[in-house]
Amino acid sequence: MSSNLQAGVVGASGYSGIELLRLLSGHPHIDVSVATSRKLVGQPVEQAYPVLRGRMGGLVFSDSEPTSLAATNDVDVFFLALPHGVASEYARPLYDAGRVVIDLSADFRLSSAETYKAYYGAEHPDLELLEAGSYVIPEIHGMDGLSDHRLFACPGCYPTSIQVPLTPLLKGNLVSTDGIVVNSFSGVSGAGKKLSADYLYCERDGSAVAYGLPRHRHLSEIEEQLSKAAGQQVVLQFCPHLAPMQRGIISTISVPGAGTLEDIYECWEAAYHGKPFVKLLPSGTFPDSKHVVGSNRVDISAVLDDRTGRFLLTSAEDNLLKGASGQAIQIANLRFGFPETAGLL
Amino acid sequence: MSSNLQAGVVGASGYSGIELLRLLSGHPHIDVSVATSRKLVGQPVEQAYPVLRGRMGGLVFSDSEPTSLAATNDVDVFFLALPHGVASEYARPLYDAGRVVIDLSADFRLSSAETYKAYYGAEHPDLELLEAGSYVIPEIHGMDGLSDHRLFACPGCYPTSIQVPLTPLLKGNLVSTDGIVVNSFSGVSGAGKKLSADYLYCERDGSAVAYGLPRHRHLSEIEEQLSKAAGQQVVLQFCPHLAPMQRGIISTISVPGAGTLEDIYECWEAAYHGKPFVKLLPSGTFPDSKHVVGSNRVDISAVLDDRTGRFLLTSAEDNLLKGASGQAIQIANLRFGFPETAGLL
Amino acid sequence: MSSNLQAGVVGASGYSGIELLRLLSGHPHIDVSVATSRKLVGQPVEQAYPVLRGRMGGLVFSDSEPTSLAATNDVDVFFLALPHGVASEYARPLYDAGRVVIDLSADFRLSSAETYKAYYGAEHPDLELLEAGSYVIPEIHGMDGLSDHRLFACPGCYPTSIQVPLTPLLKGNLVSTDGIVVNSFSGVSGAGKKLSADYLYCERDGSAVAYGLPRHRHLSEIEEQLSKAAGQQVVLQFCPHLAPMQRGIISTISVPGAGTLEDIYECWEAAYHGKPFVKLLPSGTFPDSKHVVGSNRVDISAVLDDRTGRFLLTSAEDNLLKGASGQAIQIANLRFGFPETAGLL
Amino acid sequence: MSSNLQAGVVGASGYSGIELLRLLSGHPHIDVSVATSRKLVGQPVEQAYPVLRGRMGGLVFSDSEPTSLAATNDVDVFFLALPHGVASEYARPLYDAGRVVIDLSADFRLSSAETYKAYYGAEHPDLELLEAGSYVIPEIHGMDGLSDHRLFACPGCYPTSIQVPLTPLLKGNLVSTDGIVVNSFSGVSGAGKKLSADYLYCERDGSAVAYGLPRHRHLSEIEEQLSKAAGQQVVLQFCPHLAPMQRGIISTISVPGAGTLEDIYECWEAAYHGKPFVKLLPSGTFPDSKHVVGSNRVDISAVLDDRTGRFLLTSAEDNLLKGASGQAIQIANLRFGFPETAGLL
Repeated sequence: MSSNLQAGVVGASGYSGIELLRLLSGHPHIDVSVATSRKLVGQPVEQAYPVLRGRMGGLVFSDSEPTSLAATNDVDVFFLALPHGVASEYARPLYDAGRVVIDLSADFRLSSAETYKAYYGAEHPDLELLEAGSYVIPEIHGMDGLSDHRLFACPGCYPTSIQVPLTPLLKGNLVSTDGIVVNSFSGVSGAGKKLSADYLYCERDGSAVAYGLPRHRHLSEIEEQLSKAAGQQVVLQFCPHLAPMQRGIISTISVPGAGTLEDIYECWEAAYHGKPFVKLLPSGTFPDSKHVVGSNRVDISAVLDDRTGRFLLTSAEDNLLKGASGQAIQIANLRFGFPETAGLL
Repeated sequence: MSSNLQAGVVGASGYSGIELLRLLSGHPHIDVSVATSRKLVGQPVEQAYPVLRGRMGGLVFSDSEPTSLAATNDVDVFFLALPHGVASEYARPLYDAGRVVIDLSADFRLSSAETYKAYYGAEHPDLELLEAGSYVIPEIHGMDGLSDHRLFACPGCYPTSIQVPLTPLLKGNLVSTDGIVVNSFSGVSGAGKKLSADYLYCERDGSAVAYGLPRHRHLSEIEEQLSKAAGQQVVLQFCPHLAPMQRGIISTISVPGAGTLEDIYECWEAAYHGKPFVKLLPSGTFPDSKHVVGSNRVDISAVLDDRTGRFLLTSAEDNLLKGASGQAIQIANLRFGFPETAGLL
Repeated sequence: MSSNLQAGVVGASGYSGIELLRLLSGHPHIDVSVATSRKLVGQPVEQAYPVLRGRMGGLVFSDSEPTSLAATNDVDVFFLALPHGVASEYARPLYDAGRVVIDLSADFRLSSAETYKAYYGAEHPDLELLEAGSYVIPEIHGMDGLSDHRLFACPGCYPTSIQVPLTPLLKGNLVSTDGIVVNSFSGVSGAGKKLSADYLYCERDGSAVAYGLPRHRHLSEIEEQLSKAAGQQVVLQFCPHLAPMQRGIISTISVPGAGTLEDIYECWEAAYHGKPFVKLLPSGTFPDSKHVVGSNRVDISAVLDDRTGRFLLTSAEDNLLKGASGQAIQIANLRFGFPETAGLL
Repeated sequence: MSSNLQAGVVGASGYSGIELLRLLSGHPHIDVSVATSRKLVGQPVEQAYPVLRGRMGGLVFSDSEPTSLAATNDVDVFFLALPHGVASEYARPLYDAGRVVIDLSADFRLSSAETYKAYYGAEHPDLELLEAGSYVIPEIHGMDGLSDHRLFACPGCYPTSIQVPLTPLLKGNLVSTDGIVVNSFSGVSGAGKKLSADYLYCERDGSAVAYGLPRHRHLSEIEEQLSKAAGQQVVLQFCPHLAPMQRGIISTISVPGAGTLEDIYECWEAAYHGKPFVKLLPSGTFPDSKHVVGSNRVDISAVLDDRTGRFLLTSAEDNLLKGASGQAIQIANLRFGFPETAGLL
C-alpha cells in the first residue's frame, strides 16, 4: 500500500528476529510484509511477541517454506535470521528469484570453504553462493561496487566488536599481527533463544564464565577478515565469556605495537571520521556495554601499556543491534540508497 | 565466657567486614568479642546488618580508636577490614600490644617499598612492619615457620585468582614468564561499599566494562609474587573488568608454554593434592563464578591453544571469601592450629 | 535552524531527564535547544550521558537559573524534570513569560492545598499556579479545552498504572469505591538517581521489599483523581514495593465488584478503543513489566475471583516512559497538534 | 561409619534437592548416604552440581526405584524433593518400611481430599497416608505428640510466608477472617528447574509479573491452615508474582482489624519468643528478601493503616530454605531430638 520497500523477515522467532521486526516497524522507508516462523505459523506477531504490541498491525506469522517465499512477488529484501546451515537453504531460492538477501547467519561469512569445513564440521552446502556473498561491516568494507549485489553476509557480534578497533590498525601497520589476545564478554542473548538448562535464569544470574575455548566458531571469521586487512596471516587467541546480562558485548584486545597512542587515534580518526555508528572515546575512558545497548553504535578506545609494549583496545556494542539486526538494516539502508541511519536512531 | 579464641573485627561496615562477622559467628573455635565501626558506634550489629539477624547475639559496634583497641585485654586476634593506608595505623599498636593481626588491606602485601610508592602514590607508612608482615595464600606459601608470626597480609581478590593457577606452573618452568595476558571479571562488591554514582544499581545492572587499565594497583602484588615464584622478573598485562553481579571473580590467563596439557595438570596435582579449597576441573570445563560464590574454593582448569602456543588457564573464586574474608579465616585457622576448614564449610 | 518546536529540558541530570533528551532527539517535530543541569554546566550532553552519544549534536548543559531561562527567547516548551518543591520555582517565571510548561514533578498534581500539605509536609508554594495546572493522563482526561493551557502536571508513575485500569470502572460504577487494595512493584529507577547506600547495586540486586507503607506520597494523587472519577470519596490501600530491576512498574489491584468480567472488558473497550498506548490483554494473560519497558504503553487485564467477589486488575508500564517522560511528550504532542505517537514509537 | 543419622535425598536434581544436599553436608548429626536422581544415575554428585564441590565426598547418584529404596537398610530418614503426585509413590513404600519420611511436595499438605481434588485435578492417590501425614511449621504447629510420627508434610514456600505472620493473629481474634488480600513476590527458583522458555534468563531478567490468578494451588493449603487457626472458614485472595531474582519470597498481607499495633506485636511476641527462626522487625521496617536469603529465617513486621482500618503485615523468607529445604531439616532436627538450629546457621 505504501511506496516503501517491502521486507520479509525469515525465522523471526529468535532474539535477532524480534529486533529486526522492532526496528523495521519504525523504519521510514521499509515495511515488513512477511514474517515467517515454523513454530508460530498463523499467530499474530503482536500476540507472540508482546514487546511488539502496537507496532506490527495485523501481521501474522506465515509459513517459511523456501520456494513459496521465493514466489512471493512483493517482497524486495529478505532478512534471514536463521541458524547456520539452515540459512543457505533459503538463500539459494530467494537469490535465484532475484531478491536481495541479507543473511544474519554464518553461512556466507567465510571465503574459504576449507575454513568453513574446519570450523563448522561439514562441507559448505552452496559453494557458488558462498562466493557471491559479500561480507560487509559498512564502516570497514563500505558498499562501493556492491550496489547491484544481492547476497550480504551480516558479520557476527564478536567479530564486529573486534574488527572495528583492530582492522584500521592492522591495515596501517600500527600493530603486530602476532601475539594478539582477545577477551570478549557477551550478554546471554548472544546464545539465542535456546531451550537449554544452561540458559535458565537461575543458572545465568550471577554467573560469569568462559566458554568455547580455544576455538570458538567466530574465530574463523575474525582471522580471515583480519588477515585480509593485514595482508598477511593473522593468528590470534579469542576468549569469549558469558556475562550475566541480557545484551551487549565488550571486547578487550591486547596487541603488541611499537607506535604511540596518538598514532592509534589518528588512524581511527582517519578511518571513522563522519561515521555515525563508531564513536572514539578518549584514552582512559572505557566502553561500557550499558552505554550502547539499544543503539547501533560501537564505542572504542585505547590505552598504551608501555610496561609490556602492548596496546589495549576496548570496544562495546549491542550484540543484537550492531552485532546483528541493526547492522543488517544498516546494510539494507546503504544497498537501497536510504540514509545510513534510517530506522536506527 | 567460652574457651574459644576471641576475635576483633575492625572496620566492619564494609562487605568484607560483614562476611567476617557472618563466618566467625558460625566458627566452632573463634568468637567475635569486638566489632568496630566509626559510623555505627553503639548500634547493635544485627540491627545495622539485617543479614546477620539471629547470629550475633547482643554484640554492639564499638569505637575503633587504635590505642584503646590495643588495650582491650581479651582479644587474641584482630582482623583488619579497613581501607589501605588506614590499616597500618591500627596494625602498629595492635602488633606492639602482642596481638595477632590479619590484615585484609593492601598495606602489608608488598615487599618492596618502592613498588608500594609507585602504585599507592605515597611512602609506605611503616617500613618496619612492612617487613614483619607475611603474605600468605595458604595453598601456595604454606605456614611453615610462621607459627609465631603475628602480622599476616591477606592477599587480594584478583591476585589470589591469578596466583593459584599460575604460581606452580612458573615454579615448575612449565610456562613462559613473558607475554602473559590476564583478563579478570569481578562482581561489584569488589569495589567495596562506596557511595559513588558509579555503583548505583541502575548504573551497574546490565553493564560490563573494563577499568583501571593498564596499571591497576593489584598488578604490583601480582608481579611481585609471581616473580618470586619464577625466580625472575615477571611483567604481565592485567585487565580487570566489572561484571553485573554482586560477587565472584573469574580470571582468564593466556600464557605461552611449550609443554603439554598433561604437564600442567600434573604440576597442579602435585601442588594442590589434598588441599580442600582448590579444585581442578577437567580441561574443557570452565570455572563459573556462580559455582564458587558462598564457598572458600578456587576452581581452576586449563586448555591448550596449539594454534598460538599458549595455554589458557581459567579460575573462579568468591571475591569476598577466598578473595578476602574466607582466606583471612583460613589463615587464622592455620595460625592457631584449628582445622583448615573450620568455619568455612 | 529548523521549523521544529524548540524545547528546553530543565534538570536533566536524572533518569527522567535522560529519557526526555533521548526521546526528543528522535522526535520529528521537536528539537531540544536547551538542557540545564546545575551539576553539569558547561559539559557536552553526550559526554555526561554516554548513552546519548551520537544523538545530541554539540548540545552543552547550560545553567538553570529560572529567570534567565524565562528570558530565553526561542524556547517554546519547557519540560521540568526536577524534584518536587523545586519545580514550582521554575514554573512561575516560565509560565509568566508565556511558555508552555510540562512538569514531571508532583508540584501541580493535586487540586487540594490541604492534601498537598498533609502529604508533602509544607504549604504549597504557589497556590495560584496550582489552580492553573492541568493534570492529564491523555487517555483518561483528554485535552479538550486545554489547547491554550500552559501548565501541565504530568501524572506520577504509580498513579498512571493504577488510574488507567481503575478510572473507567469507577466512572461506570462497575466496581466498589470501598475496600480497594493496590500492590505495586517498581524498578529501582523509580527512586531517581539518588546517591544513597540503599540504591547501591549490591543492596538492590536480589532484593524485593515493601516501602513507604501505609502512606506513600503518590496515594494523595491516586485518591484525589479516583474520587473525581467515582464522584465520591475513594479511600484505598496502596502498597508500593521495590523490585530488583531497572525499569518498569506492575500494579495488581484488588477491587470488590458485582458485575461480570465481560462488563469490565466492555467498559475498557469503550474507554480505550483506538488509544495507541493502552492495550487490553485477554483475561488470564498478565501484563509483564518486561513487555512494556522501552515503550509508552500501559498493558492491562482483569480476572474475576468469584470466591471473594473481587476483580483483580493488573497493569504494567515503563515508569520512565508512560510513567514520566513518555507521557510528558505525549502531552506535548497533543498540546501542539502533533500526532499523539510522534517520537514515541 | 559415623554414629550420625543417615539420610536419603530422593529426587535431588532440582533446586530444593541441591539445598538439602548442601545443608546436610554441613549438618553435625546427619549424613547423606543416598541421593537419587533418575537423570543423573551413576554421576558423582559433585560433578553434576559444581556448587557442591568439596562437600559431598564420593557420593554418587543412585537410581530412585521406590521399592529398592525402601529396602536400603541403613537410611533412617528420607527427604522427598519430588513433584507433587510423584512423591506419594515413594512415600508409601518408604513409610511401610518403617522409615521417617519428610515430604517437600504438596502431596500430604491438605487434610481434605475434596480440596486436593479441586486444586490438583485428580483424586488423591493415597488417602490413608494423607491422613497419617503431619503438616508442620515448627513455630506454629510444634512437634508435641509427633515424636513417633513418620510422615511429615513440609509446608510450601508461599504458605509459610503467610501463615507465620497471620496465624497467631487469627488465633487471637485480632484480625478479621474476611477481606484478607495477600500479594506475594517470589524469586524464579520457586518455579523449580523447569526447562521452559518462560524461565530463560532473557525472559525473566527485568520482568515482574503476576501469575496463577486467582486460584494458585497454594491457596488451598493456605486457606485450610488459616481456617483451622481461626476456628472458622477463611476465604482470602492470594496474588503471587514472579520477581527477577533467584531466591526469596516477600508477602504483603492486607487484613482488616480493630485493635492496635501493640496488640499485634504482643501477640507475635507471645507466639514467637525464643524461636530462633522468626524475627519481629519494628513497625516501619520492612522485611527484605535479600536479608533472609541464605538463612532459615522468616522476618515479619506490621503497620496500621488507620485510614482503611487495615493492618499491613509483611514477611520475607528464602523460598528454598524456610520455604522448603531448611524447614525440612528443621523438622528433622525436632523429630530426632537434635538442636533446632543444627545445620541451619
